[in-house]
Amino acid sequence: MGTGPLHKFPKTTTIQDTRHHHPRNRLTRSSCSRVSTAESSQTTCYPRPRPNRHFQALTSINNTHPAHAKLRRKARIFTMSKSTIAIIAAVSAGAGAAATVAMFSMRPGKQAEAPSPITTAPKPLSAPKPLSAPTPTAPAARDAPVNPAGLFEYGFPGPVSDLAARTALVSSYDRRLRNPHWVAEHITPQSLAQRDGDRKHSAFLEDPQVPEAFRAKLNDYFRSGYDRGHQVPAADAKWSQGAMDDTFYLSNMCPQVGEGFNRDYWAHLEDFCRRLTQLYPSVRIVTGPLYLPKRDPADGKWYTTYEVIGNPPNIAVPTHFYKVIFAEDGTVGGKVALGAFVLPNARIPNEKPLTDFEVPVEAVERASGLEFATKLPVQRRKRLCADTNCSLVIKEYADRQKAFTKGPRNPGS
Amino acid sequence: MGTGPLHKFPKTTTIQDTRHHHPRNRLTRSSCSRVSTAESSQTTCYPRPRPNRHFQALTSINNTHPAHAKLRRKARIFTMSKSTIAIIAAVSAGAGAAATVAMFSMRPGKQAEAPSPITTAPKPLSAPKPLSAPTPTAPAARDAPVNPAGLFEYGFPGPVSDLAARTALVSSYDRRLRNPHWVAEHITPQSLAQRDGDRKHSAFLEDPQVPEAFRAKLNDYFRSGYDRGHQVPAADAKWSQGAMDDTFYLSNMCPQVGEGFNRDYWAHLEDFCRRLTQLYPSVRIVTGPLYLPKRDPADGKWYTTYEVIGNPPNIAVPTHFYKVIFAEDGTVGGKVALGAFVLPNARIPNEKPLTDFEVPVEAVERASGLEFATKLPVQRRKRLCADTNCSLVIKEYADRQKAFTKGPRNPGS
Repeated sequence: MGTGPLHKFPKTTTIQDTRHHHPRNRLTRSSCSRVSTAESSQTTCYPRPRPNRHFQALTSINNTHPAHAKLRRKARIFTMSKSTIAIIAAVSAGAGAAATVAMFSMRPGKQAEAPSPITTAPKPLSAPKPLSAPTPTAPAARDAPVNPAGLFEYGFPGPVSDLAARTALVSSYDRRLRNPHWVAEHITPQSLAQRDGDRKHSAFLEDPQVPEAFRAKLNDYFRSGYDRGHQVPAADAKWSQGAMDDTFYLSNMCPQVGEGFNRDYWAHLEDFCRRLTQLYPSVRIVTGPLYLPKRDPADGKWYTTYEVIGNPPNIAVPTHFYKVIFAEDGTVGGKVALGAFVLPNARIPNEKPLTDFEVPVEAVERASGLEFATKLPVQRRKRLCADTNCSLVIKEYADRQKAFTKGPRNPGS
Repeated sequence: MGTGPLHKFPKTTTIQDTRHHHPRNRLTRSSCSRVSTAESSQTTCYPRPRPNRHFQALTSINNTHPAHAKLRRKARIFTMSKSTIAIIAAVSAGAGAAATVAMFSMRPGKQAEAPSPITTAPKPLSAPKPLSAPTPTAPAARDAPVNPAGLFEYGFPGPVSDLAARTALVSSYDRRLRNPHWVAEHITPQSLAQRDGDRKHSAFLEDPQVPEAFRAKLNDYFRSGYDRGHQVPAADAKWSQGAMDDTFYLSNMCPQVGEGFNRDYWAHLEDFCRRLTQLYPSVRIVTGPLYLPKRDPADGKWYTTYEVIGNPPNIAVPTHFYKVIFAEDGTVGGKVALGAFVLPNARIPNEKPLTDFEVPVEAVERASGLEFATKLPVQRRKRLCADTNCSLVIKEYADRQKAFTKGPRNPGS
């Protein structure tokens, strides 16, 4: 666009979806495949789908019909189709709350097998598995008339995940959605007992380790309606001012609903994690955003929808957040109590049990595209919520709510 | 959920967004930040936003008011606010077509500067820039009571992009959305002249290089209503059967609208790329999906919405696709004609000019989180559509449409 030379194009260009027709309004078509060649083209089509009534029934159990009452409090196993077993764990919504239905499905064959135990013990404190990938052939493969990898002469496209190792946390950044992929922290009774950092001296900062064009900006959050929600909580890094400052980079933030979530239920979950150190001498927590699809009752299809804040739009507002918790027994090669939780980015009533949000680690893996415990042998694993009582302590925080507006205003806001 | 031991959780669990309240229905709130500590919590809030009328006017120029007629064919510069200059390139929609508005904004300061020329010439045929990242501190940083990187004892979370170097293409895979991040190919007059591969002998294949849990499946496309759309076209890899087979992995596919897009306008664009070899002895093309936000006129906010196909939902349906084209002059260190195009995943009328979809490379970079020409000095760059006529040849393909159903059905369908 424009007629100027290419290098004069502004750096921070933004493009948007401006299709007239919302994708949801698109007619259902048969499924076809085109293979075009210079000589001919051909298309193969599948017939129009019949609605899967089993599936519809399963995904609509979250309604208010009395016959579904029991389902709302219990996980059940259904026969979904000849080749699919679905376990639906549905929970009722409190007044005005978002409900959570976690659907776990299992396909026959390889996937249905329990993971085979890993017999070689992982090295303690090993460096991260390198972002390994086959080295593209450069120069061209033998006898090939082309060399696709020659592109890298102009730079490797990425994606680069801006892995940042700070004192208080390690984080991986999503340059496309301008949120972290994940942030990892470590807390112990000793680290929480040390109190040399104070949030009064910390300020929210754009992360200079992320290139300008992909960086989350303070301005993006300004008047967005969302909190700058810490993923590694500031309160977990009070052992030094530097550690606390580490948690204030926007690469450790996501847009979170404030009232009823970031300032309430999510804060209680963070407190739950800290209280685990009363039982486990070492606790590791991985936290991050999710962007989950939702079934549209109008057409039965699944859609992911999320807001993008900033002007021009820059930061995605996650639909959900996960925490994967590793509670260690303090011995090398010892047992690890593993727990995973997925919470909607929405107001959640305090009385909702935390276990309603418990999911298998594999569910977080599939939703995030990440892997969390590939090197943890099954015989070392325990289920956190079987090992301890997974419940929140609310009162303490409810009292603090009253003091919310009394404290000094944060200089970074 | 459930009471069984953790290792019995099925591998292919899926979780969805089941919030009762659609995020769009959420009330606008002031923007607040919570900093909670053991001693106190505090919240800082911004006031409710005033609508930016300049911005509203700019993003709604795609209507039919006569006063906006000129805008629809021309890029214009507006003063958007004190700190933002927006260049809006708006084009009119054909009858029944999706319109494309590309909005480029420029912030003052660092970003507004033209990129400084890179004086060191890139090495020809250099290996890809490694997926470099700072090595997390393991063991713990000096004097720190914690060691966040100790997590990697259990495996590195990723994301892993499954870089695959095949004879015909190099691809990078998005494990979360089950589409490629990008695919890179190379075509020359000689490679297109060789005809040893035939699509009749190729079959669509799930990519075994992608782990099962994150793999796009043939079943996901079945009856989805979308084509399995080649990103590197099969017709570009006819120089050997193996090369053509390489293009049939689902890691080279995205769900594409068939009629009016994959089988029409998109196919014409692929043909345009091949015809470039009549002018340039070597052409490199990077292709991939985008998931762009769209402004909701109801609340003025930006939302990204895309369908997810499969049962359980598995593969995201991109809202747009990009092609970044490097047309080389065949000399080492010579000029490179650079062009970038972003097309909606929707029916596009053949009469729509290709230049309507031309965007700066930086716009694709910001939307995808990738980088395409970081090592290409500005003095080596030319703008493709200034160097040659960026227009499609339709007739040839229109004729082929008639033969669409006559050919043999593809064995992989």
